[in-house]
Amino acid sequence: GTRTNHSSNSNSVLALSTGDPTMFEPFWRKMEDKCKVVIRGGDFMSYFSDVKNVCWFLEPKLGDAIRRLHGVVGNAVTEERHIVVGTGSSQLFQALLYALTTPGGAEPVSVVSSAPYYSQYPEVIDCLRSRLYKWEGDAHSFKKEGPYIEVVNSPNNPEGGLREAVVKNQGDQGMLIHDLAYYWPQYTAITSAADYDIMLFTCSKCTGHAGSRIGWALVKDKDIAKKMIQYITISSIGVSKESQFRAAKIIGVICDGCENVQSTETDNFFKYSRHLMTKRWQKLREVLQHNRYLSLFKYPRQHCLFIGESVETLPAYAWLKCEEGIKDCEEFLRGIETVGRGGKQFGADPKFARVSLLCREDDFNRFIERLYMGHQGESNGHN
Amino acid sequence: GTRTNHSSNSNSVLALSTGDPTMFEPFWRKMEDKCKVVIRGGDFMSYFSDVKNVCWFLEPKLGDAIRRLHGVVGNAVTEERHIVVGTGSSQLFQALLYALTTPGGAEPVSVVSSAPYYSQYPEVIDCLRSRLYKWEGDAHSFKKEGPYIEVVNSPNNPEGGLREAVVKNQGDQGMLIHDLAYYWPQYTAITSAADYDIMLFTCSKCTGHAGSRIGWALVKDKDIAKKMIQYITISSIGVSKESQFRAAKIIGVICDGCENVQSTETDNFFKYSRHLMTKRWQKLREVLQHNRYLSLFKYPRQHCLFIGESVETLPAYAWLKCEEGIKDCEEFLRGIETVGRGGKQFGADPKFARVSLLCREDDFNRFIERLYMGHQGESNGHN
Repeated sequence: GTRTNHSSNSNSVLALSTGDPTMFEPFWRKMEDKCKVVIRGGDFMSYFSDVKNVCWFLEPKLGDAIRRLHGVVGNAVTEERHIVVGTGSSQLFQALLYALTTPGGAEPVSVVSSAPYYSQYPEVIDCLRSRLYKWEGDAHSFKKEGPYIEVVNSPNNPEGGLREAVVKNQGDQGMLIHDLAYYWPQYTAITSAADYDIMLFTCSKCTGHAGSRIGWALVKDKDIAKKMIQYITISSIGVSKESQFRAAKIIGVICDGCENVQSTETDNFFKYSRHLMTKRWQKLREVLQHNRYLSLFKYPRQHCLFIGESVETLPAYAWLKCEEGIKDCEEFLRGIETVGRGGKQFGADPKFARVSLLCREDDFNRFIERLYMGHQGESNGHN
Repeated sequence: GTRTNHSSNSNSVLALSTGDPTMFEPFWRKMEDKCKVVIRGGDFMSYFSDVKNVCWFLEPKLGDAIRRLHGVVGNAVTEERHIVVGTGSSQLFQALLYALTTPGGAEPVSVVSSAPYYSQYPEVIDCLRSRLYKWEGDAHSFKKEGPYIEVVNSPNNPEGGLREAVVKNQGDQGMLIHDLAYYWPQYTAITSAADYDIMLFTCSKCTGHAGSRIGWALVKDKDIAKKMIQYITISSIGVSKESQFRAAKIIGVICDGCENVQSTETDNFFKYSRHLMTKRWQKLREVLQHNRYLSLFKYPRQHCLFIGESVETLPAYAWLKCEEGIKDCEEFLRGIETVGRGGKQFGADPKFARVSLLCREDDFNRFIERLYMGHQGESNGHN
């Protein structure tokens, strides 16, 4: 395999606007041999993985690994659910938009999510100017009659809080997509096994393997699953078998580590990653205690069924709020040579910005340093 | 790796409606060790492959391998071209529709291709009822004013002929996509290095690795490449790194085999696959000589720059035409327990049907057997 390293050098601009989950790399480097996959010339040549499965392009081993993982972590019910694999959860999200709408409707179906919402939703939804569906913004202010889709992102990207649907009682006109990309023990308390009709997950935020582009949906209704599969067939004739095969292996190693009763941070991925996130949040809260320009949300501790005790919420992103009358947080961060993503893209005030905490250790430390220096020298134009 | 085998047993229905290229498996089984890739736990975790490249999710090794392959085969010019990688060429085709159109136009841009055209074009184009573009059918009968996209599929799926654009002089309103998925020496003579502005290729039809979902575009205009990359970012945040890494390896092995002066059918993939295709076409033409219900196109021999001599055209599909007043070829094939894809889906008469010749050897032989038996017994209702 190839190794890449995009850590910035000490003077360059810190690119923390995407959620590239490279922070988990050291864990997987240590597990290299356990996680090794070998693929030979004649393997995985066919479009088909399992002609007997509704999702004919799902590698059976990945399906098994996903069910096992949710069982071990206890974060989602997989019984009576179809698993649909996708090229990341982005493709599955588009497959759902296709599956939940019907050509020939009078108007495009409204899609909403409560602000601040994941900035990719509006982008994906409006990208091709579809007549099937249309982005309608913040779910809180949504009042239209007729069918709609509400996307519930929990824990929510950007700010990390647990969420529930907010559009109130519109009969049976509402359809829900639960995007649970961050519902894993390193980020949040697992408060119960999610039992929704449509749930989205992705490797990139669970294991950190973003490059594999593997996501999955747990779908109760067979007809919805079938329409999703139809979309993925049209859009990419299935999903990389190599990635699926490897994801199955990685997930298997995670499950083995969790089930080992003597597991420690060294081989229990969630203990390791929670520990790492804890340290990063401690450093971040510490440095911001002395910074009058930036503040953070606070979350109550919650009981986590996986860890077995009360735990902190440790979001994947810092959702920073500017104080002292500073109006544009993205611009403020640029002043300390850091690229975040401004609040506006999330349907929020520009005084907010999102900064990824999933970066490599060096970049994270550099970010903390810049926050500290930015506070020290009042010379950055924001005093 | 895992091995799968979906060969039908001798009594079951033969599924030859998709172009699953499993016929090349035995070659790659023999090359197993040369083609082996090993991926370790910490490899390919990031979304990013090369932040310095416009196509930031393209693995540099794959880019190099693609350029080398076109150089070795001589089928396309890669100089002054950007390489955009996609989840199969299907995703790249969608990326092009997005890149070649602009929101806010008075009317969707017309997309046409000369019939018989690849059945997936209309499906992909109209799938999401986009306001950006619209399928307008057979390019031969296209007469609308205004911007349009013509897809030139050469060699053409279904029937295998070399094609050129057919829409006549409409000023600078026309944009061309050259889908060259089958422009490889096993299917056709390489008559020159294709030098178009936008060219699509895919692993599945070149090497036979359909399961990897790797396609690539060679694009002259940087802004078009950038918009394609933007689409792929929105649609799937890049392309599986594992698949890219493996595709680079496989392509490298093909190039090594071709460059070896003493190369034979054993290690020169194109010699091997052309030999296989030749045998299949011989058997097919032979059995159909005695069949008065079905006929095939014939192509002149052409000089192939890669092989260095005059060669036969050996399409990936049999484009069968029913004779003797039989009106529905797909139905006729069902009578001999074979599933093809009817002419109507290709914008052609139902008396045509497409049957894949890229299947496993057993399935191909079974198909020949059924054609023979169907001719023998006049008892299938079509006498």
